[in-house]
Amino acid sequence: REAARRLIERPAFQWFVIAVILLNAAILGLGTYERWMSEYGTLINVVGWCTLAVFVVEIALRIFAEGWRFWRGGWNVFDFVVVAIAFVPSGSASGVLRVLRVLRVLRLLSTVRSMRTVVAALVTTIPGMSSIALLLLILLYVSAVVATQLFGTTDPEHFGTLGQSLLSLFQVTTGDDWANVVRAATEEHTWAWAFFLAFVVLSTYIVLNLFIAVAVEALDR
Amino acid sequence: REAARRLIERPAFQWFVIAVILLNAAILGLGTYERWMSEYGTLINVVGWCTLAVFVVEIALRIFAEGWRFWRGGWNVFDFVVVAIAFVPSGSASGVLRVLRVLRVLRLLSTVRSMRTVVAALVTTIPGMSSIALLLLILLYVSAVVATQLFGTTDPEHFGTLGQSLLSLFQVTTGDDWANVVRAATEEHTWAWAFFLAFVVLSTYIVLNLFIAVAVEALDR
Amino acid sequence: REAARRLIERPAFQWFVIAVILLNAAILGLGTYERWMSEYGTLINVVGWCTLAVFVVEIALRIFAEGWRFWRGGWNVFDFVVVAIAFVPSGSASGVLRVLRVLRVLRLLSTVRSMRTVVAALVTTIPGMSSIALLLLILLYVSAVVATQLFGTTDPEHFGTLGQSLLSLFQVTTGDDWANVVRAATEEHTWAWAFFLAFVVLSTYIVLNLFIAVAVEALDR
Amino acid sequence: REAARRLIERPAFQWFVIAVILLNAAILGLGTYERWMSEYGTLINVVGWCTLAVFVVEIALRIFAEGWRFWRGGWNVFDFVVVAIAFVPSGSASGVLRVLRVLRVLRLLSTVRSMRTVVAALVTTIPGMSSIALLLLILLYVSAVVATQLFGTTDPEHFGTLGQSLLSLFQVTTGDDWANVVRAATEEHTWAWAFFLAFVVLSTYIVLNLFIAVAVEALDR
Ligand code: NA
Ligand code: NA
Repeated sequence: REAARRLIERPAFQWFVIAVILLNAAILGLGTYERWMSEYGTLINVVGWCTLAVFVVEIALRIFAEGWRFWRGGWNVFDFVVVAIAFVPSGSASGVLRVLRVLRVLRLLSTVRSMRTVVAALVTTIPGMSSIALLLLILLYVSAVVATQLFGTTDPEHFGTLGQSLLSLFQVTTGDDWANVVRAATEEHTWAWAFFLAFVVLSTYIVLNLFIAVAVEALDR
Repeated sequence: REAARRLIERPAFQWFVIAVILLNAAILGLGTYERWMSEYGTLINVVGWCTLAVFVVEIALRIFAEGWRFWRGGWNVFDFVVVAIAFVPSGSASGVLRVLRVLRVLRLLSTVRSMRTVVAALVTTIPGMSSIALLLLILLYVSAVVATQLFGTTDPEHFGTLGQSLLSLFQVTTGDDWANVVRAATEEHTWAWAFFLAFVVLSTYIVLNLFIAVAVEALDR
Repeated sequence: REAARRLIERPAFQWFVIAVILLNAAILGLGTYERWMSEYGTLINVVGWCTLAVFVVEIALRIFAEGWRFWRGGWNVFDFVVVAIAFVPSGSASGVLRVLRVLRVLRLLSTVRSMRTVVAALVTTIPGMSSIALLLLILLYVSAVVATQLFGTTDPEHFGTLGQSLLSLFQVTTGDDWANVVRAATEEHTWAWAFFLAFVVLSTYIVLNLFIAVAVEALDR
Repeated sequence: REAARRLIERPAFQWFVIAVILLNAAILGLGTYERWMSEYGTLINVVGWCTLAVFVVEIALRIFAEGWRFWRGGWNVFDFVVVAIAFVPSGSASGVLRVLRVLRVLRLLSTVRSMRTVVAALVTTIPGMSSIALLLLILLYVSAVVATQLFGTTDPEHFGTLGQSLLSLFQVTTGDDWANVVRAATEEHTWAWAFFLAFVVLSTYIVLNLFIAVAVEALDR
């Protein structure tokens, strides 16, 4: 048990695991090219199973070394679940499982120490921006209901349903192609520009304050 | 009267009101889907009237508890007006009133305490940016008059009237699809790029300083 | 002379001048609508000449009151030139002069005191960003020469001449519709994505540092 | 040798070199216009060879003056390589070499002192953002693999191969025309908006923190 712990904590072992994760990531990328799969499919699959075997052995070693304390670390549970996904019997949901296999690449976040720090830092900034994010959500929801009622019949492509309105207004918020959305609405209702002007100014102002809140949190660190 | 005040200040009461506001918001959202309205229209309307009844009782309780001091709080007046809108007799303006009903969702801002703080903070940052915002408005107005005179006849879609020019230049300011606007103008007048280059550089610089002014205000808090 | 100085410095006089500038701005805006011009053209022209007369009297008063010191203030010279433009005999360049008349609206910047402060603050931040702006210009120029040589024949719409390449790359810098420019180039030359990836990353990084330089200057104030 | 060193360090000499670099840049720009080349091609070529001769003499002087210490300065080696490129025999790779000649304009960065400082400052900020940039890369890669598996067959234009998915998702990250990408995907798979919402929120949040990391580094300077 002590030997297992020492092995796990050796830098060489950790670099080996990182290398296997990167190899696994490359394999997953190659797997999306049909031409490569038809030519080297067997090789790719064999390497894929080998990397999985390494992950299983590594997790087993860590569980053996740390005992029940293993399950208290959030990252440990993350590693376990991500590897365990490979062994769920794939019935009709095989497509979903194939997609979830990609999550194994995220083990880079749990294994590389500096990435853990960054992720932790990003997560701690979330609470400071939750109030402003909620304000943005309320503005988006209220505006989407209004826009669906006002423009739903005249511009169904953008505002036909509440969902489409939410997408279109989020699009306006991010400044993507918003002027054409406004032009289409203004052609039918001449006063529509007032609605969108108010929305653009308000949402930009809130998003700006959201960004500033994140920056202030980051500067406090 | 004292009993009413104690009831209003109980957290359970406030959470109940918040829940009713959220229920009301969901109802308004469902109301935009015709399929839901035709099937569950009666239910949706009944729940809508119930939430309105809760709001009326709550406002009445607060007026009773606080007396004439109720009318001195800006948020109180906001709550009263938003609920009172429902009782305006809807004649020809029924469409507008239906739209205004959505404002009841904004009661989340007045009822949830942390939202009040955020809104107050956002409002206090406005004066610090008013001079730069005015500068941006002057630049937009002057440029729009010039653009209408220069490109009004050759590119009427973007610069036909002063209003269209203002929209197009605001679009350029936000960086949305500006290059195509410039390309269309430059095809007719080869020197048009100079006008737009000056406008893009100036407006981007002013917007950047507007953002910085907001950030500086926020950092001072 | 002392009386003239006292008159000029009275707030009521300054508010009157600001009101005339705003009236003049409104007149210039109305002048872009043909419908208004054909109906109220005479009235608009008369009011326009009246505001000009007020400007002339005001400038004359200030020159009389301050004497030769008038010409040492940059804003004074600006005011004089902007008003004097109206008296340049309009020959073939009448279109240009009509456009320049709009500059009279910019007298708001010289007359409203808080606007003077803002403009002065914005101007003082310029030196701090000149080195980084120069770096961006060098990157744009070098990339435009390369892009014209590489993509000039295959994508003449975006990279046909050096001027078009500069516009297209500036467009990519501001993130406007850049992916389609890249897709068009990549269809012909499969390695084109590498050129654009390098350009996008470099230019975004420099623009970001340009913004930060402005922010740092602003925070130092 | 001492005389050579004194000559090199004279401001007049350095201004002369900068002027030649600018002349060379102008020549390279003119070279992209076929009309100019056909009329003044000989003149442009002669001036181009003269500027190259000046560069060669200058580099030779500096090597002579500084001796072996010349090769220890990174900027010196950069200057040498950029000039040496002109003498590589152009066989089949003549197009590539013609493109690389443009790099001579970058000698402005090594010759103007304030540009050296700016470039050095920009380079020192890179390490502080490497962890977050790596996080963004991992997110992009994982999402691109997933998007290729999910939307590769239904929207081959955007997600046909891993490379196209990376470009499209990077496009979404920069907010360029992302709503249309999402609309195309959502038409086929109604749940696709959830994937893109998660991606937009996550990637925007990481890019924002990347920007803040750069700003914090810059403020520490
Ligand atoms: Na955009
Ligand atoms: Na766009």
